[in-house]
Amino acid sequence: MKVLGIDLGGTKVAMGIVDNDGNISKRKTIDTKTEEGFNAVVDRIVTAANALMKGEKIEMIGIGSPGSIDHEKGIVRFSPNFPGWINVPLGPDISSKTGIKVVVENDANAFAVGEKWFGVAKKYTNVLGITLGTGVGGGIICDDRVFRGSTGIGAELGHVVVEPNGYLCGCGNHGCLETIASATGISRLAREWKERYPNSSIKEFSAKEILDAAKQGDPLGMKVFERVTDALGIAIGAFVHIFNPQVIVIGGGVSRAGKFLLEGIEKKTQENVMKSFWGTYKIVLSELVDDAGIYGAASMCFEELKNDKTDTR
Amino acid sequence: MKVLGIDLGGTKVAMGIVDNDGNISKRKTIDTKTEEGFNAVVDRIVTAANALMKGEKIEMIGIGSPGSIDHEKGIVRFSPNFPGWINVPLGPDISSKTGIKVVVENDANAFAVGEKWFGVAKKYTNVLGITLGTGVGGGIICDDRVFRGSTGIGAELGHVVVEPNGYLCGCGNHGCLETIASATGISRLAREWKERYPNSSIKEFSAKEILDAAKQGDPLGMKVFERVTDALGIAIGAFVHIFNPQVIVIGGGVSRAGKFLLEGIEKKTQENVMKSFWGTYKIVLSELVDDAGIYGAASMCFEELKNDKTDTR
Repeated sequence: MKVLGIDLGGTKVAMGIVDNDGNISKRKTIDTKTEEGFNAVVDRIVTAANALMKGEKIEMIGIGSPGSIDHEKGIVRFSPNFPGWINVPLGPDISSKTGIKVVVENDANAFAVGEKWFGVAKKYTNVLGITLGTGVGGGIICDDRVFRGSTGIGAELGHVVVEPNGYLCGCGNHGCLETIASATGISRLAREWKERYPNSSIKEFSAKEILDAAKQGDPLGMKVFERVTDALGIAIGAFVHIFNPQVIVIGGGVSRAGKFLLEGIEKKTQENVMKSFWGTYKIVLSELVDDAGIYGAASMCFEELKNDKTDTR
Repeated sequence: MKVLGIDLGGTKVAMGIVDNDGNISKRKTIDTKTEEGFNAVVDRIVTAANALMKGEKIEMIGIGSPGSIDHEKGIVRFSPNFPGWINVPLGPDISSKTGIKVVVENDANAFAVGEKWFGVAKKYTNVLGITLGTGVGGGIICDDRVFRGSTGIGAELGHVVVEPNGYLCGCGNHGCLETIASATGISRLAREWKERYPNSSIKEFSAKEILDAAKQGDPLGMKVFERVTDALGIAIGAFVHIFNPQVIVIGGGVSRAGKFLLEGIEKKTQENVMKSFWGTYKIVLSELVDDAGIYGAASMCFEELKNDKTDTR
């Protein structure tokens, strides 16, 4: 059985045909170009998807999208990094233009489900997924079920405030986790501080470069690393107190900083967690890496097909 | 059908015999005296409970206790405001000394369930309860079920950090919601700032007096009120983003400040919540007031009796 998983990101759209054993047989990546507006983005996704699916038997299309998603209706209600995407019919439009059933899920929810189907969270029932990418997303699995809240838009873990009165966030608030621990946030911090660290080796100001420099002891890199891990420690500490999860999976582009970042997060999280919670959770990096988004989107299809509760759109 | 509800607080223990229509027929309050240690507290609770239950047919005893509770075993694992209470057998000890089945629950979880059985949350399935008392507690009901996390100790909403590197909290961390929005925290803030506000009318420094003074425009009261509602806005904003609840019920002694406090919390929460969540939740004050703890503890019995999953201890 094959499905098409579409990972809709702020800068790129990655898609791949995935079977239920987790093999990706065909794949394609296109630019998102959010500035062109919703309809243009949909048209380019459909063109790429149809080309990829030609000659294949595809049961369903799964889309992982940033923002508040109406999972039942396939609507993007609001997405901080997609200007103007307010109540847009992403699922219905792509379904009508491809002739295939579509399931839309918040990309971070999809990430958590993907880790449970294909990744490091396979044996767990209570999973918290955090994606550190252009934005910061959260996905929660409680007792083997995706947790979405009463109107389906919960688990916005990136918009927990970790620096009161801090940077303005895309969501309209100040000091959200996303303003610090996203790739965008990390890059901004390094740029803002660079004058104070003339000896820093950082040149391109990508999150990866900054965190790699921190690992080598670069003073600017270290400064940013401390603030980023402080923010993640506060937020993940809160999530541990709230959800009491078995495992926290860190994904997204920023997680490529690897073990060095993980150890920083582990240390700062423990500093923020009361003793009775010590040893109740572990923090791991996603191993699906670049394909986590495709796997996440695809896993939502398998989840739907398993539950046999998909309606035709 | 009658049960005994016991509300174990940091300073007082309130208990009452409650029937399934919500009538409290007999009641008693004793001092907690945590400084005397676990065994002495248990003995005084048992003496008072036995006196109250004499001649009554009591089906079960429910105890709402602060801290991390092992609900299955009736054990208090750790309780920030009860020094030395680490893995103490509260339920088994009281059961063996009264001869009656005992269910122990985190007091804030019990509060949320009590609001659903007897209070303002009767018609809701997704409820978040926050108690502002000696400490700050949280209780979560998702899809009509108490949410406890994978090892049963989640929903510690008072230990979300709202002021990074802020005041030391009883839990060992700094800047938890509890350090600001508890009665203790409010009182401390006013005492610390009092030299700057010689014209303030505040004399006793109780949370109630401070918030009432704020309502009258007292400058010290207003200063504290702003900081307390800022903290609550950050925390409740996070909870809305995470849980997407239908209703947030505010209880505990501090909630006696009433509509003035509620309006402050509503305003600051909305400031911290992204637009797509506006209108998805409402914030209300508990109307059970002084009896919320007894009702909460009692409701856990009715919940257990309903589910018929109680084991004999």
